[in-house]
Amino acid sequence: MNDHYLEDCAVGQTWTTGSVTLDAEAIKAFARAYDMQPFHLDEEAAKATFFRGLAASGWQVAALSMRLLTEDGVPFAWGIVGAGGEISWPRPTRPGDTLTVHSEIVEVTRSKSRPDRGIVTVRNETRNQAGDVVQVLKANLVVPAREGQG
Amino acid sequence: MNDHYLEDCAVGQTWTTGSVTLDAEAIKAFARAYDMQPFHLDEEAAKATFFRGLAASGWQVAALSMRLLTEDGVPFAWGIVGAGGEISWPRPTRPGDTLTVHSEIVEVTRSKSRPDRGIVTVRNETRNQAGDVVQVLKANLVVPAREGQG
Repeated sequence: MNDHYLEDCAVGQTWTTGSVTLDAEAIKAFARAYDMQPFHLDEEAAKATFFRGLAASGWQVAALSMRLLTEDGVPFAWGIVGAGGEISWPRPTRPGDTLTVHSEIVEVTRSKSRPDRGIVTVRNETRNQAGDVVQVLKANLVVPAREGQG
Repeated sequence: MNDHYLEDCAVGQTWTTGSVTLDAEAIKAFARAYDMQPFHLDEEAAKATFFRGLAASGWQVAALSMRLLTEDGVPFAWGIVGAGGEISWPRPTRPGDTLTVHSEIVEVTRSKSRPDRGIVTVRNETRNQAGDVVQVLKANLVVPAREGQG
């Protein structure tokens, strides 16, 4: 599966992952561990907040998107090694939402200083069951070049 | 605690959170749930990878940094409501590392279209016990203006 070297990556290649559904309990459990704010913890308290109802932590959406990507997302030779990127949450993720990640390679750059590798920039849209985008992660991944290994 | 409105935010304000320590078991447990790659799951398998040893998922570092910030980080009136931002992991987080987040306001912008709120950009450095930066999160937070509420 992990057979994609830098030479195999091209702008415009796309992948789609499987899906995962969050219920209110999953949202609250993640929040208790990592993001203890009322809009992630309690339906009633959430009504009076910015989100006007229970919403998942953005970091839960990020972590679940990563799970989908590692399960059957992008088949890079070293795995998914992220140097960093840009992340945004255009709208909240709600109890009952089913998430799927749609990925597209938007840039491929061989390293000048280390020609055995490069950076592949992948735009990952996490969409809910209505097709609305709940997260955009433009990730810079470290990918080995076939030429130059071993 | 959550008493910081847009008018109270100024470039250069800083906060420091408490700390959290990760052991190998915590790294593997997070990976089993969200990031099933060999360098996050198994010490032996990790030796032959990019990371040359067990390393925490970047999303675990992000989630734990959020926990520290919500525990006693940045006291904004609506809580920590992130629209998005830039994230990077300059070096791996290893078993036994103790993480602390150092935050600084780097930009304050009132919304032109919705003057009851603005965006406060906070640069959050997560550092290990040696002072090395393991994550930089430049986060755009939605913060209400005192003038214009209720």
